[in-house]
Amino acid sequence: MATLPAPCSRHHHRLARPAGSHARASTFQVSSTRGREAAVARLPRLAHREVMLALARVAEVRLGSRLLPSEVPADVAEFGDAAGGALGSVDVRRGAPRSSIDFMLETWFHRAIPSGGAIDITSLIVFLNGATDAPHFLMELIQGGPSSLVVLLDLFPRRDLPLHPDYIDKYYSATGVDTHRVNIERVPQVRPYVSPSLLVRSLWSPTAVVVDIQCGEGGEAALEEIVRGQLASSAMAVLDVWLEQCAGSVVEIEEADRLSLVARDKMISTTSVKLNLSANLPKMFEAEVCSRVVDEINKAFLGS
Amino acid sequence: MATLPAPCSRHHHRLARPAGSHARASTFQVSSTRGREAAVARLPRLAHREVMLALARVAEVRLGSRLLPSEVPADVAEFGDAAGGALGSVDVRRGAPRSSIDFMLETWFHRAIPSGGAIDITSLIVFLNGATDAPHFLMELIQGGPSSLVVLLDLFPRRDLPLHPDYIDKYYSATGVDTHRVNIERVPQVRPYVSPSLLVRSLWSPTAVVVDIQCGEGGEAALEEIVRGQLASSAMAVLDVWLEQCAGSVVEIEEADRLSLVARDKMISTTSVKLNLSANLPKMFEAEVCSRVVDEINKAFLGS
Repeated sequence: MATLPAPCSRHHHRLARPAGSHARASTFQVSSTRGREAAVARLPRLAHREVMLALARVAEVRLGSRLLPSEVPADVAEFGDAAGGALGSVDVRRGAPRSSIDFMLETWFHRAIPSGGAIDITSLIVFLNGATDAPHFLMELIQGGPSSLVVLLDLFPRRDLPLHPDYIDKYYSATGVDTHRVNIERVPQVRPYVSPSLLVRSLWSPTAVVVDIQCGEGGEAALEEIVRGQLASSAMAVLDVWLEQCAGSVVEIEEADRLSLVARDKMISTTSVKLNLSANLPKMFEAEVCSRVVDEINKAFLGS
Repeated sequence: MATLPAPCSRHHHRLARPAGSHARASTFQVSSTRGREAAVARLPRLAHREVMLALARVAEVRLGSRLLPSEVPADVAEFGDAAGGALGSVDVRRGAPRSSIDFMLETWFHRAIPSGGAIDITSLIVFLNGATDAPHFLMELIQGGPSSLVVLLDLFPRRDLPLHPDYIDKYYSATGVDTHRVNIERVPQVRPYVSPSLLVRSLWSPTAVVVDIQCGEGGEAALEEIVRGQLASSAMAVLDVWLEQCAGSVVEIEEADRLSLVARDKMISTTSVKLNLSANLPKMFEAEVCSRVVDEINKAFLGS
C-alpha cells in the first residue's frame, strides 16, 4: 500500500478558501471531476478506490447536465486530521431542475490504524426524486484490511415490494440485475454480509449484493484480482442498468402517491445517514471534521 | 428411511366420508391433534417431520380455544396418488371470533422419486388478522434428499419496514429473535438459500432463517443431528417468541390503516400460495389431488 501523503496542503486549502466564498464555489463549478481526481489522488492507492473512480466518472459523464455543479465547501471536498493519518473527501451534486436526479453523493475516507493497516470506506450514492419511483443507486465499499472488503451494491427499492410485484418485474426481473449478484456470490472467497442493524437490512432489494470478501492472511493479491475483475465488471453492469432503466425514467405518479414516495425516501435517507455515516465517521475523524462533513451530507440527503 | 405405507386405507377414508357430510366435520372436531398424528404416522419417519410435529403440538396447545376445529374434508386431511408413492395431509383451522388468529395451516407432503429417494415438504403457517399488526408465523422445510434440507423460518413482517423502525424494534430487536438466525447460520453445513422468486425474497423479515443445509454424500446422520439439535431448538424458540409476543397481541389500529394492512396480507398470501404450493404440488401429486388441496388452501389464505 502506498505511503500516506502529507496533509499540509489540506490546511492551505482551508485557509485559502473561507467557507461561503464565491471564489470557492466557482472553482468547484469548473470541474467536479478534476476536484475528485485530485482529492482521491491524495489518498493511498487502492484497487477498490480505482474501481469506484471509474464508476463515478461513468455516472458523471452519462448523467451530464442533469447534475448541477458541486457546491460543497473546500474543507468538505478535502479534509483530514491534524496528525495526518486520516484523509477524506466528500462531494455532493444536486440534480438539475426538471431532471429525475435528487442528488449524487460521493464519499472517500481513509484512516491509518496506529497498530498498522488502515480502514478505507468509499461510497457512491445517487438518489432520484419524486419524478419517478425508479430505484436509487447505492454502492459502498468498506475495506478493513488489505485482504478483506465488504461490498454493498444495490438498486434501492422505493416501493413496499410485496405490494408491488409489477415494480419487481420492471426494475429487477426485466433488467436481469440478479445475474450480477449471482456472479459475485459465485466467487469462492465471497460470504454473505449481515449488517448489525435490522433496519439497514430491511432496505435492500431482493437482488442486492451484500457480501464480505475474505481472502485471508496474505490474500492481498487475491482480493485485488477479485476487485479489479468480477467486482468491477458486475458493479459497472449494475450501474449501467441503473443509468439506462432508472436514472432517466419519468413515471406518471398521482400527487398523494408522490408525497408518500418522497416521505419513504426521507426515511431511507435518514436511516442511511444515521446508521451509516454518522456511526462510522467519528471512528475515523476528529469531532470537528465529522460534524462539518455530516452536516454537508445531511444537506444532500435531507434537503436541509 | 422407513418403507412407504400402503395407500389403500386412504381410499377407504375418502369413500367413507363424502365431502360436506356432517359426520366428517364432527369427527374432525373431536380432535384435530389425533387426526394430524394419524395422518403423519402414515408418512415415512423423518427427523424434520418429528420436529414439525412437536412445533404444531405446542402451537395448538398454546393457542387453545383461539383455534376453531378443523373443517377440511377427509380427502384433504389425507390424500395420495393411486400408485402409492405420494402421500399428503393438509389441515386448516380458522381463528375463533374475537381472537387475533386468521388461520393455522399445516401441510405434510411426501413423494417417492422413481429413481430412488424422496421429496418431503412440510409447513406450518399461522396468519394473524386485522386485530393486530404483529407478524405472522411461517416455517417450511423442504427436504430433497436424505442429507439436504431447505429451512424457511420467519416472523413475516406485515409493515413496510423502512417506514416503521418502531415495528422492527418491537417485534424483531426487543424479542431477540435474531439470535436464533445467528445460531443456525453458525452451523458449518448451513448455506444461505436464495429463492428463485424475487417476490418471495421480498417477503422475509431481516431476521429470517432462509438456509440450505447440505451435509453431502453419506451425511444423513449429520443432517438428522442438526435437525433434532440446533434446528429444533431454534425453531421452538422462534415459535415461543411468536406465541408470547405476537399471537395474542391486539393493537390499536385506525380503520383505514387496518384495511391497508389486510390488503397487504392478502397480497402476501396470494404470493405464498401461487409461488409456493401451486408451483410445487403438481410436481408431487396428480392433477385431481392438487386442485382439491390447492382449493382448500386457497380458502384459508384468501378467505374464499
